Amino acid sequence: MERKNFLRCLLFIFGAVLLLIFTVYNLPNELSNNPELLECTTNSPWCISKNRILGKKPNFLHQPTTTLGHDHTADVPHHPLDPLTIQEMNKVHKVIKSLYKDTVYSVHSLVLEEPDKEVVLKWKKGDDLPPRKASVIARASGKSYIFTVDIETGEVVQQDTSQFSGYPYVTLEDMQAVVWAPFSRSDFNRSIIARGVDPKNAACLPFSSGWFGEAEEGRRIVKLECFNTEGTANFYMRPIEGIIVIVDLDTNEVLEIVDKGKHIPIPKAAGTDYRLSAENSPVFKLPNPVSMEQPNGPNFVIENEHLVKWANWEFHLKPDPRAGVMISRARVRDSETGKMRNVMYKGFSSELFVPYMDPEEAWYFKTYMDAGEYGFGLQSLALDPLNDCPRNAQYMDAIFAAADGTPYVRSNMICLFERYSGDAAWRHTESPIVGEEIREARPKVSLVARMVASLANYDYVIDWEFQADGLIHVKVSLTGIVIVKGTSYVNMNQVNGEELYGTLLSENIIGVVHDHYVNFYLDMDIDGIDNSFVNVHLQREYTNGKSPRKSYMKVNKEVAKTEKEAQIKLSLYNPSEFHVVNPNKKTKVGNPVGYKVVPAGTAASLLDPEDPPQKRSAFTNNQIWVTQYNKSEQWSGGLFAYQSHGEDTLQVWSDRDRPIENRDIVLWYTLGFHHVPCQEDFPMMPTVSAGFDLKPVNFFERNPVLRVAPYVEKELPVCKAAASA
Amino acid sequence: MERKNFLRCLLFIFGAVLLLIFTVYNLPNELSNNPELLECTTNSPWCISKNRILGKKPNFLHQPTTTLGHDHTADVPHHPLDPLTIQEMNKVHKVIKSLYKDTVYSVHSLVLEEPDKEVVLKWKKGDDLPPRKASVIARASGKSYIFTVDIETGEVVQQDTSQFSGYPYVTLEDMQAVVWAPFSRSDFNRSIIARGVDPKNAACLPFSSGWFGEAEEGRRIVKLECFNTEGTANFYMRPIEGIIVIVDLDTNEVLEIVDKGKHIPIPKAAGTDYRLSAENSPVFKLPNPVSMEQPNGPNFVIENEHLVKWANWEFHLKPDPRAGVMISRARVRDSETGKMRNVMYKGFSSELFVPYMDPEEAWYFKTYMDAGEYGFGLQSLALDPLNDCPRNAQYMDAIFAAADGTPYVRSNMICLFERYSGDAAWRHTESPIVGEEIREARPKVSLVARMVASLANYDYVIDWEFQADGLIHVKVSLTGIVIVKGTSYVNMNQVNGEELYGTLLSENIIGVVHDHYVNFYLDMDIDGIDNSFVNVHLQREYTNGKSPRKSYMKVNKEVAKTEKEAQIKLSLYNPSEFHVVNPNKKTKVGNPVGYKVVPAGTAASLLDPEDPPQKRSAFTNNQIWVTQYNKSEQWSGGLFAYQSHGEDTLQVWSDRDRPIENRDIVLWYTLGFHHVPCQEDFPMMPTVSAGFDLKPVNFFERNPVLRVAPYVEKELPVCKAAASA
Repeated sequence: MERKNFLRCLLFIFGAVLLLIFTVYNLPNELSNNPELLECTTNSPWCISKNRILGKKPNFLHQPTTTLGHDHTADVPHHPLDPLTIQEMNKVHKVIKSLYKDTVYSVHSLVLEEPDKEVVLKWKKGDDLPPRKASVIARASGKSYIFTVDIETGEVVQQDTSQFSGYPYVTLEDMQAVVWAPFSRSDFNRSIIARGVDPKNAACLPFSSGWFGEAEEGRRIVKLECFNTEGTANFYMRPIEGIIVIVDLDTNEVLEIVDKGKHIPIPKAAGTDYRLSAENSPVFKLPNPVSMEQPNGPNFVIENEHLVKWANWEFHLKPDPRAGVMISRARVRDSETGKMRNVMYKGFSSELFVPYMDPEEAWYFKTYMDAGEYGFGLQSLALDPLNDCPRNAQYMDAIFAAADGTPYVRSNMICLFERYSGDAAWRHTESPIVGEEIREARPKVSLVARMVASLANYDYVIDWEFQADGLIHVKVSLTGIVIVKGTSYVNMNQVNGEELYGTLLSENIIGVVHDHYVNFYLDMDIDGIDNSFVNVHLQREYTNGKSPRKSYMKVNKEVAKTEKEAQIKLSLYNPSEFHVVNPNKKTKVGNPVGYKVVPAGTAASLLDPEDPPQKRSAFTNNQIWVTQYNKSEQWSGGLFAYQSHGEDTLQVWSDRDRPIENRDIVLWYTLGFHHVPCQEDFPMMPTVSAGFDLKPVNFFERNPVLRVAPYVEKELPVCKAAASA
Repeated sequence: MERKNFLRCLLFIFGAVLLLIFTVYNLPNELSNNPELLECTTNSPWCISKNRILGKKPNFLHQPTTTLGHDHTADVPHHPLDPLTIQEMNKVHKVIKSLYKDTVYSVHSLVLEEPDKEVVLKWKKGDDLPPRKASVIARASGKSYIFTVDIETGEVVQQDTSQFSGYPYVTLEDMQAVVWAPFSRSDFNRSIIARGVDPKNAACLPFSSGWFGEAEEGRRIVKLECFNTEGTANFYMRPIEGIIVIVDLDTNEVLEIVDKGKHIPIPKAAGTDYRLSAENSPVFKLPNPVSMEQPNGPNFVIENEHLVKWANWEFHLKPDPRAGVMISRARVRDSETGKMRNVMYKGFSSELFVPYMDPEEAWYFKTYMDAGEYGFGLQSLALDPLNDCPRNAQYMDAIFAAADGTPYVRSNMICLFERYSGDAAWRHTESPIVGEEIREARPKVSLVARMVASLANYDYVIDWEFQADGLIHVKVSLTGIVIVKGTSYVNMNQVNGEELYGTLLSENIIGVVHDHYVNFYLDMDIDGIDNSFVNVHLQREYTNGKSPRKSYMKVNKEVAKTEKEAQIKLSLYNPSEFHVVNPNKKTKVGNPVGYKVVPAGTAASLLDPEDPPQKRSAFTNNQIWVTQYNKSEQWSGGLFAYQSHGEDTLQVWSDRDRPIENRDIVLWYTLGFHHVPCQEDFPMMPTVSAGFDLKPVNFFERNPVLRVAPYVEKELPVCKAAASA
């Protein structure tokens, strides 16, 4: 016990020294004018700076800029759903400080407490904003707290958190602090030195432990896995296999060191550094660049920093530390009446599930829920202009809170751009036998809002794409680095039936089989809040001799009465369309207005339903769900997903089987990918994408893009090759 | 009988007069220099002209041109797979004429008889071409003939066709001639006049009859459905419902007139003319165009008119009257060795199946097989530059044969362009907790070969997209006009449980439920002709207490020994990857090199397997098939699909259950779409797309695009807005 305390003390000293070094190294060159805002380039590595010229007008021709050419300190909210401003966060920060006084606390989430839906729906431009409130999730003295702060009055309303088994997502500061913990243990250092790794070259990363029983209860823990960074940025390819360091996240105390796999060499992984600056083989370059060009600037406007208006669409767009991007109040203009019509009150990626399929000790727990465990938005860093988004993109910054409650700016977290991919919105050529030469085609231009979350090794690109025909395409793209496992094998001919749990990607490197699931919260409000969910079932019907045809496919519509009737497992051989309709509103010819979810990117989890990871990520039990709207049911893996037991999930809510016919309902869709890694994924995975559609179905009286104009030569940009090309 | 002969005589006179009028109207202004080539703008409506300047060098900045800025009359073949040239076709034409002498004949297909695979594989640039041969399908005296013509010697080798129940696809001339047949019948004219249609405004279109039994045996028949064209180009929205005119295609004799539905009004369909010139409501226009720009010109070259070289890819590309686009000898450069490696010997869309789901008399037979019944390429017309393909596209012409064997030019049938859609080929941002700021992203640029077939109302866009990471994406997009059914209903509240077989789209208009299937022939030759098909099966495995995890997903690989083992019905809950591997070649770490087919756009036919249309299009019974290579098995619905009984289909070949392990094998993939029309599809359907991938899986030693260069500002085009924008 005494030894443990001594080590803990050593650890703290070690941490303090590091912090001191870090601070001295990063000391600001001049005093900040705005001490309440974390200064990028100085105080925080996750506060991402860029060379911006304050107040400069966007210049579309020469360099990408944000829409908001200012430093955000003077931002004021304009819309009930606008995220908290720096000034608002600072007010809340003061309230938090006064609340905890001398107690050590950490803020895990500090975001706008959105007003109730009816308040938002009633609000009109020019009205006063409803009272601005902050929703805070914090930890202090080993407990988790949720409270609401009224920003004007400072009033605090606290919620009971006793029903939650888990914890809030870890903060970046949690992660930053814990990565040093293993080095306080001499046995750890000895072990890695014995494997030929100089501790100064070792990097340990914190991986959420999941929950499998008592071992993951009662304290916040994290499991660290370490890598040899010597001479490469792609240390992921050099795992120190089999060593797992289990650490208490609240105290940074090392609880256990699992030390197996001493016989497994650290892969050489030569030539796997992917950085341009580290290039060690010829760069593959197409000499003539092809570029998306829009020299006049975009056709969209971003009003008051968050309200996006483009073509026939209008929606509120904001960054969120947990979801990444939140789309709210998506409305589309009716092509007949010219009126804006409600489509979706809110949509965002609610939770992820990434189970690795290796039951061995260093791997079995790798069953990540990236939104609830790490904060999907918190891990979304600045985008690379020109390569993450096309040249015509504009960028939006995020204001997030550090663990002490101080706001900071995450620059260029979202990009917004119009896309023309060379496809047609519609086209038709008339058959020459009709006698008239008709050839009509219209270009398809869409608007994309994009963010990219980098969850350690993996990168998730989330695109919300709006089309003028009313369709919303939601796409998830996976790229980045496949996490690998060290092995003693260098060739498959050495493997005699032993299970690898993956693919031998290179010498001593296995890419472990895994899945990715991303669940989306889609609060559809088609022309009003009361909607129904209709299973438009396609079935074989026999003609029984009444036709030369034996059979045909018949459509049967079934309205789901309760939540369980809307737990949908897709079937190729028993197909349906899935419509969200407004039963109270019909088109001129009498069809209920609606949108359908068009599934794609389907994969079903093969884990046992009672396996703890599967219970926690039970949103993967069905591809489609519909629940009764409940403001508190937003995170499909649970509000406190970290080490949760799975008692606050979409499955649990849906199993209440509440009525959903002609009610305010929420649609949930789970995109899935099975991933058996292959050598092409090594050492950097080419992007793989899948997406689903939200598509108008008898929502418009007719095709809303029938009257869209074609491209004509004389209106297109006039371009010449760059002098340096 | 006498009356019938009289009418037939009248019909012929009527046809002859029309032909005379047509010829006089289109008389050439000057005598053609090349009387053996049909002159566009004069003799043939399906020979599509454009304003081209002979011999002009392509100018990428100002106007789209073909790659081949000449008139094709002097073209010579350079590659064993090059399509027949005009001169070659003329030689064959002479042989055909001498063969039939005074017998009336029609040429249904006149294409290159490709040399045997081993001959093509042995051939190298600089070698003499193997003997050039033509494959001809013709009809004369009520019989179908297949023969091969040696172009140099004129030698003819005839094939036995007695095993085929069906007929060759109809020619454009068949269709052109037959559309007048109904008007020779006074009862038909009376009937349409009684419905308020002036016969001069009626247009009748020929629809294939399918085969349902004796009624469709013994003679080539077609079913005509008629429309009121008065004041609109979109006559499809004005069906004269219930009238079906059955005509003998060889004699143009009207065999039967089905005249039902007299109570059904012809829909007004106001405002459904989609042409820009007919615009009758405001045109929806985004003021600032976004364009794909590549002012330096493309990075691809088309050597000798058909051999495409781009980035690390090389393939032979040619138009085909039946398949549309044929991709041959697709090879990719190995990123390690720099050597070209075989991927696919040949790929093309082999057959379509579009069954409508209405068993009533005027609709039950609508079960189209568009490649085998109409010629998918024959129906592929000139593309609209700027709107069908982006501005940086180049175009390829087709040389097809008219029904008498005369060659003609189908201009701009295929476009080829490089695409940048604003997506990343790969990207990664390193977590800030690691301490180093890393943000690397690379743009994804691909090469697209596109054609669009317009099958009467529908338009099918077929894209073959090649990526530098080795992936081939095959995409089918559906647009054009949904064929509709007239009804007396104007509102759904009038319908009392009566089955509509579709959706009420507008007053008196029903969009009938239907499916679309497109089957692709994919002769994969991964690093050689002998390949195996591997079912990489993902299954739940239990840990039985050996891990805190209960379960995981395990990979089991099963090599298909025979064709029946490779009849694959996809299952979401019993998933697999499907690899074509070369078992004789392994990567350095010992994985067999391969490509996988990544399914998407899946739909299963719900028709009874014994329903005649389903038997004929039995390729829809499975999503994936693998057969032993057989040069004659190319058309999955049968070589003579028209009125066929389904005895020459992929199902029949596959049921032979030949060995396929370590053999020359062909992969088949069926894309499917269920289509329940909605009001947004009226009167012009917004494009819907789905595609599958052919993706390298342990084919490369590592990611082949790791060293791809990022975009940098100074190398991108310099653009300004057009003066008129």
